Amino acid sequence: MRPSPREIHTVTSIGAGPIGGGWAAFFLSRGYQVRAYLHSMDEEPIFRAVIDTAWQSLAEIGLAVGASRDNLLITDDLEQAVAGTQFVQESAPERLAIKQALYARLGALVPADVVIASSTSGLPMTDIQADCPTPQRTIVGHPFNPPYLLPLVEIVGGAATDETALDWAVAFYAHAGKEPLRLKKEIPGFIATRLQEALWREALHMVANGEASPEDIDRALRFGPAPRMAIQGQCMAFHVACGEGGMATNLDQFGPALKLPWTRLDAPELTKSLRDAMVDGCNEMAGDRSFADMAAERDRRIVKIIKACTD
Amino acid sequence: MRPSPREIHTVTSIGAGPIGGGWAAFFLSRGYQVRAYLHSMDEEPIFRAVIDTAWQSLAEIGLAVGASRDNLLITDDLEQAVAGTQFVQESAPERLAIKQALYARLGALVPADVVIASSTSGLPMTDIQADCPTPQRTIVGHPFNPPYLLPLVEIVGGAATDETALDWAVAFYAHAGKEPLRLKKEIPGFIATRLQEALWREALHMVANGEASPEDIDRALRFGPAPRMAIQGQCMAFHVACGEGGMATNLDQFGPALKLPWTRLDAPELTKSLRDAMVDGCNEMAGDRSFADMAAERDRRIVKIIKACTD
Repeated sequence: MRPSPREIHTVTSIGAGPIGGGWAAFFLSRGYQVRAYLHSMDEEPIFRAVIDTAWQSLAEIGLAVGASRDNLLITDDLEQAVAGTQFVQESAPERLAIKQALYARLGALVPADVVIASSTSGLPMTDIQADCPTPQRTIVGHPFNPPYLLPLVEIVGGAATDETALDWAVAFYAHAGKEPLRLKKEIPGFIATRLQEALWREALHMVANGEASPEDIDRALRFGPAPRMAIQGQCMAFHVACGEGGMATNLDQFGPALKLPWTRLDAPELTKSLRDAMVDGCNEMAGDRSFADMAAERDRRIVKIIKACTD
Repeated sequence: MRPSPREIHTVTSIGAGPIGGGWAAFFLSRGYQVRAYLHSMDEEPIFRAVIDTAWQSLAEIGLAVGASRDNLLITDDLEQAVAGTQFVQESAPERLAIKQALYARLGALVPADVVIASSTSGLPMTDIQADCPTPQRTIVGHPFNPPYLLPLVEIVGGAATDETALDWAVAFYAHAGKEPLRLKKEIPGFIATRLQEALWREALHMVANGEASPEDIDRALRFGPAPRMAIQGQCMAFHVACGEGGMATNLDQFGPALKLPWTRLDAPELTKSLRDAMVDGCNEMAGDRSFADMAAERDRRIVKIIKACTD
């Protein structure tokens, strides 16, 4: 029986890098007792530097009652790091063999009802949990860097993961102040990384072909689609940009462009079922807001983002 | 002989939609006299509504001296719309036959030294200018919606375009307060749309395969990579996320992931020349700023963006 997310007071963060350090800082800022495991105490200065940098922004956002950097235990003893823990966030190096060996140990050390979440950017949990003696509570909880600021956590299990562990993790992350996104399927790269990776590979193609420089890529994003994407994502950006017709107009107007070589990635067939899924999804997100209201909200926020990016 | 961008006082905006209306509002806000051509005066209410919406944000950003919505002439007479104009921004419907017929007329009506820029999202200027009697001054000047707020303008010519027209357009847009991005080659979709389109097609694949809903796509972007992309683009986002090692570490660490199915788009071969171009490009953008300073700046701005998106 897992405790309610509200009753969690002690968590473990594994890893000394920007992700492990970032998670430790985040949990400290939310008032948790944090036990940090480093592979070697030589990594302590780097780890503390990540926390000190993160703390400036976390303090600006607002700390939870009782939050303090003093609530941190740093150790290179894995047993000590997980003693009494109620949740483990693992951010070890992105190598399958390292993670598998770690989950073999954690699976024996950590009580079987405690959820262990991996920050992996794309390794499947089915592979990571292969040698874990208690895999049913192991999940992916994938953040975006910097994990103390960007709210997204993508959540998905492996073949041996129990649904109750995923349910609990969604509730726990949300309670801690994150935006959990539970995946429908275990797909390589999850959702956010796949979207970013498609864009990134197109960027690499353009640089490789002398069509754009890295600076061109970054300026194109910063001054073009990215501020809008930060506010609306991409589906609602198109939905609102098309005015009253919304996504239906977008797909009618730009549907033919899906066949054009506007990127090196071929589009899927725009079947009626895909069209309906896109249109229905956007209408649901819009709810009863009018297009004029959604456009006005977008504009108001773009003005703020432009100011934030140029101050 | 073209006048200096500073001497431009009268411009023409063609098109009644969100792009044509958005450009008209932008130029009005910068103090220009604007002559707007609508296909039919029936479109006037929609056109004026776009301008009224835009004006709220433009006033918030700050109007130029002398800027007024009264400096607007609306007409369905093309000759009247271009009489005395010093620059034409064309935002007609995205259909090649319509644009070609329009450029045939404009090419005869508008003095040959006046630059005519198309807002096309992806039609090549080489095709658009095919029937224009004076194609040397016709260019693409591609904005992102809403064009009165997002600063990017992608600039590229067609086969018959003169380099001097492109030089002038870069200077004019910059003077008017835009961020011109001059393309090295005429490629379908330009740079920003290609990046967005790769991401969009990957999103459509995921929805088509039941891997994600439109809401999942938008939440993944808004709470994950998009705020960072709005601040740093994608190259610098990876450069700074990797700490002291920068883009070189990114490519070493995630280079193998370019072979993984993290998106349906295959990556180019990571040759030494591509690697060097990415690393050198990021080092140039970083200049003498330290990684700690760049990370602190990123964090400070992410906090503002998160506040802007949740207020």
